[in-house]
Amino acid sequence: MTATVPLHQLSATAAAAAIAAGKLTSEALVAACLEHIESRDGDVRAWAAIDRKLALQQARDRDRATPRSRLHGIPVGVKDVIDTCDLPTAYGSPIYAGHQPASDAACVAQVRELGGVILGKTVSTEFATRHPNKTRNPRNLAHTPGGSSSGSAAAVAADMVPIAFGTQTSASIVRPAAYCGVIGYKPTFGLLNRAGLKFLAESLDTLGTLTRTVPDAALIVEALAGVPAPAFAEAANLKPRIGLCRTPYWQHADASSQANFERAAGKLAANGAAVEDVTLGGEFAALAATQVTVSGYEFSRALTHERMRHPHQISASLTGRINAGLLVTRAEYEAGQSLALRCRAAAADTFRQYDVLLAPSATGEAPQGLESTGDPVFGLMWSLLHLPCLTLPCGTGPAGLPLGVQVVARHGADAALFLHADWIHRALDSGPDAAR
Amino acid sequence: MTATVPLHQLSATAAAAAIAAGKLTSEALVAACLEHIESRDGDVRAWAAIDRKLALQQARDRDRATPRSRLHGIPVGVKDVIDTCDLPTAYGSPIYAGHQPASDAACVAQVRELGGVILGKTVSTEFATRHPNKTRNPRNLAHTPGGSSSGSAAAVAADMVPIAFGTQTSASIVRPAAYCGVIGYKPTFGLLNRAGLKFLAESLDTLGTLTRTVPDAALIVEALAGVPAPAFAEAANLKPRIGLCRTPYWQHADASSQANFERAAGKLAANGAAVEDVTLGGEFAALAATQVTVSGYEFSRALTHERMRHPHQISASLTGRINAGLLVTRAEYEAGQSLALRCRAAAADTFRQYDVLLAPSATGEAPQGLESTGDPVFGLMWSLLHLPCLTLPCGTGPAGLPLGVQVVARHGADAALFLHADWIHRALDSGPDAAR
Repeated sequence: MTATVPLHQLSATAAAAAIAAGKLTSEALVAACLEHIESRDGDVRAWAAIDRKLALQQARDRDRATPRSRLHGIPVGVKDVIDTCDLPTAYGSPIYAGHQPASDAACVAQVRELGGVILGKTVSTEFATRHPNKTRNPRNLAHTPGGSSSGSAAAVAADMVPIAFGTQTSASIVRPAAYCGVIGYKPTFGLLNRAGLKFLAESLDTLGTLTRTVPDAALIVEALAGVPAPAFAEAANLKPRIGLCRTPYWQHADASSQANFERAAGKLAANGAAVEDVTLGGEFAALAATQVTVSGYEFSRALTHERMRHPHQISASLTGRINAGLLVTRAEYEAGQSLALRCRAAAADTFRQYDVLLAPSATGEAPQGLESTGDPVFGLMWSLLHLPCLTLPCGTGPAGLPLGVQVVARHGADAALFLHADWIHRALDSGPDAAR
Repeated sequence: MTATVPLHQLSATAAAAAIAAGKLTSEALVAACLEHIESRDGDVRAWAAIDRKLALQQARDRDRATPRSRLHGIPVGVKDVIDTCDLPTAYGSPIYAGHQPASDAACVAQVRELGGVILGKTVSTEFATRHPNKTRNPRNLAHTPGGSSSGSAAAVAADMVPIAFGTQTSASIVRPAAYCGVIGYKPTFGLLNRAGLKFLAESLDTLGTLTRTVPDAALIVEALAGVPAPAFAEAANLKPRIGLCRTPYWQHADASSQANFERAAGKLAANGAAVEDVTLGGEFAALAATQVTVSGYEFSRALTHERMRHPHQISASLTGRINAGLLVTRAEYEAGQSLALRCRAAAADTFRQYDVLLAPSATGEAPQGLESTGDPVFGLMWSLLHLPCLTLPCGTGPAGLPLGVQVVARHGADAALFLHADWIHRALDSGPDAAR
């Protein structure tokens, strides 16, 4: 089965099947990924820390051990705001260059326990905020990969690893995934355990994944959180009820994104989905600004040690956002959290009529240049609402770079999200089928 | 003003006033605390790490600096599950003996930024769970101080420090505070920033305080979270509407606690409060067991690194609880979180009729022996409900050790909790007035 697809391009699900069937070793898979990284990462710069020997040693250990899960032998990338006990973790900041945590984050230890291989650490922007790091977009090196999960999105898009962990507080999984043309999944808030993450805004920070297929995202959630993956074989028979949610921020999307979104909606209807416009209530228009208020209040406090002791090693842009966050009063913060609560209840009502919502993933394709990670506006409201989201590659923009559409499900309905997103992915026919 | 009260017995509020008036230096205050620790801690064993020189140096630096808040020059103890960049942090576990974090937790850095002095690290039980550590109850050394914030409660009770941070997932602030006869305050979930805490159960873990006065708890919340302290001078004019909430676990309270609770209710009514029985709905009876389910699912994942790499350095009791947590299915966990949501909504309704609820703090006085930290049952439901709670010393049990009553307010009403708790504290006349 591996004759036609280079090993490093295999999805985790396909590789797991090959390993389980005795047709593939973890060592061969990991070696192929490492070799591909060797050839591509000089350009892409997706990796913050990698130890070839350590990765291969883990793989050989797996090949000698009894499989404990479908993650057995599968390489996983870890965003560098997540602690690892055997690889340095710099949180995307020069303040922590070379920092070696004493222990693994829960998600990392869980991957090891389940037989996965920690391939290395992927580049994060500064403390998972907007200030860019060194990673370039593998689809076009002159463009940003987006952020903050820059390295995870780029590494998965460049076929260096099938799965990488990302985190999202604003749009830090969905935006880079859309820019790099991969699948970014932000779970329901709190679904994947956050112990061992560098906290930015604790009421929003969410651990998620970057993958090239929908079932690969489901694989991680099944393994780590005990949420059974849906029966993807049944996706073909679905008739999804899809709410087209242009969001109150629609005018921020450029013409090509808007046209692409409308085309996608037409294609889904043509494939048998019930597609209907959804307009959210007036209060939803305040969610993006409210996310900035709430996160600013929190991250200006979470980063107190760094801003007190290392102010000159914090970027000017983050310093500005911290200072703005320090001006947010407790009353403003609480008003923001109250708005979020009201809109979460209203969103729950909306989902009575739809299986999923379809929304834009980003304002357009990845901007040129590495000095910005792009506009997070299409992530802010969903992050604040704590809803599970998954962005699918869909179409291209004027520069030939990927565009995406975002599938959003009701709170806690992550398995349903996977199933419907897989249907939509097939209907849009935009997935890298070779790797499925 | 300090002639009649030894410096180490001053409340933070009183010390802050003396420092602001130029009548007291931080160095004198910190030196007095250190001297008292020297004389008492051989018996009490409240401190996990302390560096006299470092503490005194901070105090001298404060005395030369311009005050930035009412915390200026005030010594604060820090539970040893909270990271400090200049003192080791062992999380109450031999696995992390001597571990030195790279940075301060947000709350520690905030205290420093506001001019406070980090006096040292207080003893925690193993990862803030039930397995006891070395601390003894300062009221009677043959008895447990409770846990998990054992050292913080004992240090404050023994007049070694006016304020110490604690954390509560089940009953880890309220229970030790009640056993040691001090004020334990668990804020509304998420009020004090949790970045830099060792996570146990992230949907429950709450950072709070141990103090000897109610205004001292308010001082911390005002300084760190921007919640203005209430006008305590107005507390005298209140006519609180108090709901007597014996809880579905009333039968777990021993006879002396039950009698003490009824006496307290009578005293509050005699002082002018409107006191009325509150019966919570049937679902509330499941909250304690549900807290065990929800926290078990979470902490068995949060501690994956430790249980994989250091299984022999985890206590037998915690190992048993981890193994039980690993058996909780995702469906059971989600059912538990759904129950919590329903009861939070029902509790919000209940609070329309009352300013605060009064509930038992613990099942009785501190049990004899150091092999258990006591029964957490009277903390579980309030932790799962995310409501702010404050335990006040009130009466004594058969062994002459302190009993407590717990004041509970609606979600987010921490300032109102302080005001009404202060009224109740005065009405019960059980506070250490000398230190106010």
